[in-house]
Amino acid sequence: MRNILVVLEYDGTDFYGFQRQPKGPTVQQAVEEAVKRLTGTPTRVTGAGRTDAGVHAYAQVVNFGSEARIPIERWAPALNSVLPQAIAASEAVEVPQEFHARKCAGSKTYLYRVLNRLPRSPLEGRYAHHCPGSLDLKAMQEAMSTLLGRHDFSAFARREAGDRRSPLRTVLRAECWREGQIVNLLLQADGFLQKMARCIVGTVLEVGGGARSLEEMAELLRTRERARVGASAPPQGLFLAQVEYRCAHLQACFGRTFE
Amino acid sequence: MRNILVVLEYDGTDFYGFQRQPKGPTVQQAVEEAVKRLTGTPTRVTGAGRTDAGVHAYAQVVNFGSEARIPIERWAPALNSVLPQAIAASEAVEVPQEFHARKCAGSKTYLYRVLNRLPRSPLEGRYAHHCPGSLDLKAMQEAMSTLLGRHDFSAFARREAGDRRSPLRTVLRAECWREGQIVNLLLQADGFLQKMARCIVGTVLEVGGGARSLEEMAELLRTRERARVGASAPPQGLFLAQVEYRCAHLQACFGRTFE
Repeated sequence: MRNILVVLEYDGTDFYGFQRQPKGPTVQQAVEEAVKRLTGTPTRVTGAGRTDAGVHAYAQVVNFGSEARIPIERWAPALNSVLPQAIAASEAVEVPQEFHARKCAGSKTYLYRVLNRLPRSPLEGRYAHHCPGSLDLKAMQEAMSTLLGRHDFSAFARREAGDRRSPLRTVLRAECWREGQIVNLLLQADGFLQKMARCIVGTVLEVGGGARSLEEMAELLRTRERARVGASAPPQGLFLAQVEYRCAHLQACFGRTFE
Repeated sequence: MRNILVVLEYDGTDFYGFQRQPKGPTVQQAVEEAVKRLTGTPTRVTGAGRTDAGVHAYAQVVNFGSEARIPIERWAPALNSVLPQAIAASEAVEVPQEFHARKCAGSKTYLYRVLNRLPRSPLEGRYAHHCPGSLDLKAMQEAMSTLLGRHDFSAFARREAGDRRSPLRTVLRAECWREGQIVNLLLQADGFLQKMARCIVGTVLEVGGGARSLEEMAELLRTRERARVGASAPPQGLFLAQVEYRCAHLQACFGRTFE
């Protein structure tokens, strides 16, 4: 059995997230169906990140086992011929048996795009969250800097009662910058709890708009009180942008690079 | 009667173009309905450019007459509260009676976005034309430069037999440049014949791909033979980007500026 890694770009608007579920179409299901159409054999596709409903990806990394004799350079074009228009494979690599797209991921980078101008924008609305008020980017950057390092991110996540998995994550980069009408927020971490990126962005935007102080942001990390965190930012601004592997099986980085 | 100028941004994907017609929803119809909902009075909306089905606008300029006592700074927000999500008003200005959005336009600028990479892109597909092959941008720029100045653009337009209107237009700017995976083509002219921008882009892309020589491009302008022009480029890559007025009634420029 070969282990095939594929890098996917997708528009998440019409999907119920990455992970297979009964409510409606998901990215995982679409990719599993595409692989089955190509090879005739059902397979299980594993993703690096479980993006939520409506969240996009410049670069999601998946892997799956296959006995098919498709040459590795033919996998991406073959998948693109059967995948729905909203999903495309940009690259395929054959990886060692032990490689697992999620467990082996060293870090993931999410980009959040905010449209910061008074009128709404039909051309940005699909791929950005509209914040018409003025934003203090210096305060937002300071708020994001408090997240750097290893912390218990319970306050910034949706966790089921009784979830025994560790809420500790290490944030490696947390930056924001303006590009014209767009304010970008970048978060790189060794892993993300459920809704963590969007909870952080929602809270940082409250700091940027003056509704919350920098001190409160730091306190949230200490107190871990979910109830006191800002509203989770909507999904259409969020993009899984990069996945990095630095494991024994694979040394590689897929997706967009931000200087 | 006041004369109201409004700058519109729209995603043209789901419209049958700007101009009102029986086949389906158009931008003009949507704006006329929005104005009627606000003021209770039917009105006729005039646009600077008659964008085709599927063509977008960063900045379309329209004007219409209204007796409504809405303060000028409230027009854009009021329209946005009733316009469909795919259209937004970014600005409104009260202009002299004589002002006509199309007849007074000194120049219009169109931007055409080409996605130039091997795999298709779900995140760019809505707003760019996918050309996977290699493109010679130097040759494309030379081809575009031959268009500068005043010419008979009959070869690059769809014209009805018997159309007596002049096919002479003056191209003021014709440039192309790469931004990562996107190749941009910019055309500024005192006016555009029907399908002119997309016919030019289609032909320039053939020069870029090596299917057509620079000499042929120059010859098309001389011979004016429509049949020999390249295929018209698809609508989703085209954006009405800027409209400039330098008339007695208005000195202003609306939309995106390209350095």
